[in-house]
Amino acid sequence: MKIFYSDLHFQHAPAFEVFDGGVRVPTFEVPERAERILAALRKTGWAEIHPPIDFGLDSILAVHDRDYVEFLASAWTEWLATDPEAESATDKSALLPATFALRGQAHRPKSLLGRAGYYMMDLSAPIVAGTYAAALASANCALSAAQAITHTTSTFALCRPPGHHAGKSHCGGYCYFNNAAIAAHWLSAHGKVTLLDIDYHAGNGTQDIFYERGDVLSISIHADPAFEYPYYAGYAEERGAGAGLGFHHNFPLPAGTGDEEYLTTLNAALHLIREFQPTALVISAGMDIYSEDPLGKIRITREGIRQIGARIAELRLPTAIIMEGGYNNDALGDNVVAFLGEFE
Amino acid sequence: MKIFYSDLHFQHAPAFEVFDGGVRVPTFEVPERAERILAALRKTGWAEIHPPIDFGLDSILAVHDRDYVEFLASAWTEWLATDPEAESATDKSALLPATFALRGQAHRPKSLLGRAGYYMMDLSAPIVAGTYAAALASANCALSAAQAITHTTSTFALCRPPGHHAGKSHCGGYCYFNNAAIAAHWLSAHGKVTLLDIDYHAGNGTQDIFYERGDVLSISIHADPAFEYPYYAGYAEERGAGAGLGFHHNFPLPAGTGDEEYLTTLNAALHLIREFQPTALVISAGMDIYSEDPLGKIRITREGIRQIGARIAELRLPTAIIMEGGYNNDALGDNVVAFLGEFE
Repeated sequence: MKIFYSDLHFQHAPAFEVFDGGVRVPTFEVPERAERILAALRKTGWAEIHPPIDFGLDSILAVHDRDYVEFLASAWTEWLATDPEAESATDKSALLPATFALRGQAHRPKSLLGRAGYYMMDLSAPIVAGTYAAALASANCALSAAQAITHTTSTFALCRPPGHHAGKSHCGGYCYFNNAAIAAHWLSAHGKVTLLDIDYHAGNGTQDIFYERGDVLSISIHADPAFEYPYYAGYAEERGAGAGLGFHHNFPLPAGTGDEEYLTTLNAALHLIREFQPTALVISAGMDIYSEDPLGKIRITREGIRQIGARIAELRLPTAIIMEGGYNNDALGDNVVAFLGEFE
Repeated sequence: MKIFYSDLHFQHAPAFEVFDGGVRVPTFEVPERAERILAALRKTGWAEIHPPIDFGLDSILAVHDRDYVEFLASAWTEWLATDPEAESATDKSALLPATFALRGQAHRPKSLLGRAGYYMMDLSAPIVAGTYAAALASANCALSAAQAITHTTSTFALCRPPGHHAGKSHCGGYCYFNNAAIAAHWLSAHGKVTLLDIDYHAGNGTQDIFYERGDVLSISIHADPAFEYPYYAGYAEERGAGAGLGFHHNFPLPAGTGDEEYLTTLNAALHLIREFQPTALVISAGMDIYSEDPLGKIRITREGIRQIGARIAELRLPTAIIMEGGYNNDALGDNVVAFLGEFE
């Protein structure tokens, strides 16, 4: 299997994120995640690891608003240039906003801190010196995987940072560019595409991007946002709008969901995919569904993860598998290998 | 002059707020602010200090959405009851969200942390044990001041916490209930009302509440949100909507604005008020316009503050003056006395 990986991800290494209650914690989304996956893949006999091709900004701008992309490109330099006293920003180790453009209408402001709270929805996607370079490389891994399945069966993009929480014009939840959505859009030029998101958290960014599109069927199976991040999207009644009505599906799961219930839900999703008859499949592959994940509250075993892979592979579609979350570093590599091993 | 004050404000004393960059700092909005003002008022010969009358919830629900008020009422108890491990909330000294319902549509979630980011727009309005009780008492001070001007010339509500950043269904910027808006709405039952906001920061909450109302003329003079909090509202082109079109006015000022330029702007606002011919006036009186304020970037002297008071008093309208911001504690009491001293 062709694997696309760039070590530019090391340049994105924020030291912390901020949890509820205003508490700084060491971030869970660390470079070690990709290192562990890479090490596990290298031990298999089938992983061919390639650097990504540079697709340029156009493939990203097809999915994200230009002003948002420009914000990501310049935010770090602007942050360093702000007057620390004037902006009351005494620690510049990472850019995080303190004020957010809440629900409803909001004027787009000129200042850096105003734009930060306009484009960032939470305190888990800090911007540091190498964030933009790493996010670009991550998107190029996904695009390379998408291009590769036009002449092979399945590929894997070892993306870091992940992508599925990033919307048209916002980052959040460790995500900056929506790698899977960028790949799915690229593939949509060649036929109907399905994007299936199995990450533990609802793919709110992907939902935002494809909500009004009927040529990309987007499906997300995830922890119920009634109790879990990202809270404000991912509900069963959100089924698309306009030309996209009926082409988005959310399958929220209760805390504690095990293999059996998960696979039953997956079967319902696979049924929708078969009916849609796509020419290509993109998988947002988060391994935080794993029973021992520090951020997850559902309980999928490694054997369950293998079976999820096997059932998706039975669709026999060209499939680009895009790495998303998963924070149990000791298990992460083996979980990814168990999943990918079911694909040809 | 009748002054309304409740020492229930002491129950609202968060230890910190979070600034840009994810930095905890000691909060600027401290109980000492009200103590200093009270001490300065007690030294004058004219301040008659009264406890507020309890107006009940209906006067607050006339301005704020019920679900938001219910959130404020129960948030602290719910926060204490959350499983610290499950919610990754290791420090419960104050409730602050880490994820926010950004621009556009957002599903209203059931969970406490989801609702926190739905109703709270920044990291400067933490909820602690006594927040709700203090906010209720603060609103009652404003209502008491409003009621008093139906049979006297001018009154002062020594409100803490302040209110003008609180919208129909959000808190932020040290504000929970919009005391001045609650007072203005109460007065609107008796005739046309003008709410003039002279706090350094744009009164985005007040703008939100009265934006579609033509019976309350709302005017805010403030630091340009292009560079200053609250960033997403307070621009000159925002002039109301529907029945309220033309009945909201923002006067954004550049950093460094001095007395002379400020008073010229104030004259334009006073002209609008004279044309509107209200029967009552509510002032959101923030003293963070003061040249030595630690959060402000404009440069109004104490003599300038006195002149602002004098010019407003020349309107000879029944006037309820509501305390908002002001964070130079050494100067705060004298600034308030200089302002109030111009009113009968």
